[in-house]
Amino acid sequence: MTGSRISGQVRIVGAGLLGASIGHGLRAGGVDVILDDASRSNLRLAIDYGAGRAAAPDDDPRLVVVAVPPDVTAEVVARELAAYPAALVTDVASVKSSIRSELVEAGADVERYVGSHPMAGRERGGAISARADIFEGRPWVICGGTIAQRRQLEDLALELGAVPVSMTPEEHDAAVALVSHVPQVVSSLLAARLIGAPDPAVSLAGQGLRDTTRIAGSAPELWVQILSANAGAVARILRAYRDDLDAVLSALEAPDAPGARRGIAEALASGNTGVARIPGKHGTSKQFARIVVKVEDRPGELGRLLAEMGDLGVNMEDLRLEHSPRAQVGFAEIAVLPEVEQRLVADLQERGWSIMGALE
Amino acid sequence: MTGSRISGQVRIVGAGLLGASIGHGLRAGGVDVILDDASRSNLRLAIDYGAGRAAAPDDDPRLVVVAVPPDVTAEVVARELAAYPAALVTDVASVKSSIRSELVEAGADVERYVGSHPMAGRERGGAISARADIFEGRPWVICGGTIAQRRQLEDLALELGAVPVSMTPEEHDAAVALVSHVPQVVSSLLAARLIGAPDPAVSLAGQGLRDTTRIAGSAPELWVQILSANAGAVARILRAYRDDLDAVLSALEAPDAPGARRGIAEALASGNTGVARIPGKHGTSKQFARIVVKVEDRPGELGRLLAEMGDLGVNMEDLRLEHSPRAQVGFAEIAVLPEVEQRLVADLQERGWSIMGALE
Repeated sequence: MTGSRISGQVRIVGAGLLGASIGHGLRAGGVDVILDDASRSNLRLAIDYGAGRAAAPDDDPRLVVVAVPPDVTAEVVARELAAYPAALVTDVASVKSSIRSELVEAGADVERYVGSHPMAGRERGGAISARADIFEGRPWVICGGTIAQRRQLEDLALELGAVPVSMTPEEHDAAVALVSHVPQVVSSLLAARLIGAPDPAVSLAGQGLRDTTRIAGSAPELWVQILSANAGAVARILRAYRDDLDAVLSALEAPDAPGARRGIAEALASGNTGVARIPGKHGTSKQFARIVVKVEDRPGELGRLLAEMGDLGVNMEDLRLEHSPRAQVGFAEIAVLPEVEQRLVADLQERGWSIMGALE
Repeated sequence: MTGSRISGQVRIVGAGLLGASIGHGLRAGGVDVILDDASRSNLRLAIDYGAGRAAAPDDDPRLVVVAVPPDVTAEVVARELAAYPAALVTDVASVKSSIRSELVEAGADVERYVGSHPMAGRERGGAISARADIFEGRPWVICGGTIAQRRQLEDLALELGAVPVSMTPEEHDAAVALVSHVPQVVSSLLAARLIGAPDPAVSLAGQGLRDTTRIAGSAPELWVQILSANAGAVARILRAYRDDLDAVLSALEAPDAPGARRGIAEALASGNTGVARIPGKHGTSKQFARIVVKVEDRPGELGRLLAEMGDLGVNMEDLRLEHSPRAQVGFAEIAVLPEVEQRLVADLQERGWSIMGALE
């Protein structure tokens, strides 16, 4: 890498996955990174892995990044604002309004605090899992600040390969409630219904259940902090969700009543409309053609398929695997640009692959 | 294929994806397959594609398979029972109790009816998408019947590569409500919350939202039939879900009240417990090691990775792709047996791949 957008020292408080990953990314650009952590052993580990150096008495950071759990973020930000009166202080917690309120209440110098939130998609793993590139191509939300302050945080995001996005703290919290916090609650509550179900029932589980409950495996300790800190925004969306659920439930309790089936159909159709809004890989909700290829379950088969697609010059826009429980066969659903679908199907069939209908 | 488990003619009513796929599978074993469909053009298409032959006056099927939409299944089963008094009649609809009740009410000869449900995982696509192998390794639920009748349907399932599972109609309906119908409602209602959300909020969507809302894209016409026909079992589970949701909502509305955080944490922990019950690829919930590899977004890159894994003799147990919106890079999360993880990471790194921490 040739030079860095960042001038001066950067101090990172919290040497977990996010903090250490920021450290790795900045060090790659030659930045002087100071690491701190309440746990001496975490700190030692992150320094050993090359995420930065230990603090020194004459440190003079221009930027402090607080990367500690949400429930102690405000407290640490306030302490850093006081300790480094010339620095801009930011944090990377996944909630923003409540941290700002806590700082205002505590009488902190909030003029030098600008919250941010890198949507890195992985918040577990600690310093050992830290990598410079976990922010690549991800949104990095920046909440408020002066033009100069925002510029400083945009440079941080860009330096790490992220895409800076400007939002108010309230816009941010409503957005993450919608795309992250409410889905977490919905998924956890759905998975909880599996407790106590008979084994044969659970054994009928297919890809639909697997997908809807995957995030139910998330760490409760972290999520209770996130949900509590964003309780208002989450509750607002969950109330609307609960009202929709009650309507469907009423319809199901009397499915032959006038309007019941129409009500159910409208709920399902609204789901179609909503899911179509989710941006695809390239930031649009462009429709790809999807083909399903049968893949034997032995080493290298899927690799062979994808290598042959590469030979054919076809780029895969998305890939989903579906397994057959108890069988040595799987299905690869491959999304490609619609214009290449026909040729790809013909070429793959010619090479002996079984092409099947689209997955549900 | 050498011979078939099936003796005598099989008549299939409904030449959509399921019916035509059964036809293809049986024909591959040399079975005389008679196809029928209310739509002459559907029927023509399925016959052209080789799923069976048209009915003839002297047909004498030993088995009739009704593969029509759920809302007309009972009616068609009753008609077939009357038309072929020597045949066992089954259906493949995804609900079972209500069809049996309708038949009893209609005075049909239910002694010769045994319901079944192949969990083929894809119910759309029509005759063109039909393939003999969509049942391979999938559960095929058989509800009731005498030993001889069950044997006849088990042979049908085995002939198509499916795994026969015995359940009562009530057990089946409770099971699919849990693993399929309730997840559909939950996912559709969640996706519906995206309607009207600001674009910047939706643009923060990550893999969690994508996974939880994927099945919200399902066809409302089919699903309103399924949900109405299994309304009782679905409502029973949704009521318990709604009660859990109300409890979380109350906690979020007063997150500082005594017990509120504990309540939220317990809901999340129950989600952990529930999701751990879902069987993995090989019919167990065995834990795999998961490694994440950075993959450039160009043709053949993922293929090259998987081919190299094949060269290393490592079988992939599961694969998940995560994309970076607006970036030409993606991440492949690969599940492998824990005992091969270390060697694989070392070998891949040696070959120049970037290995990252586990995805959330």
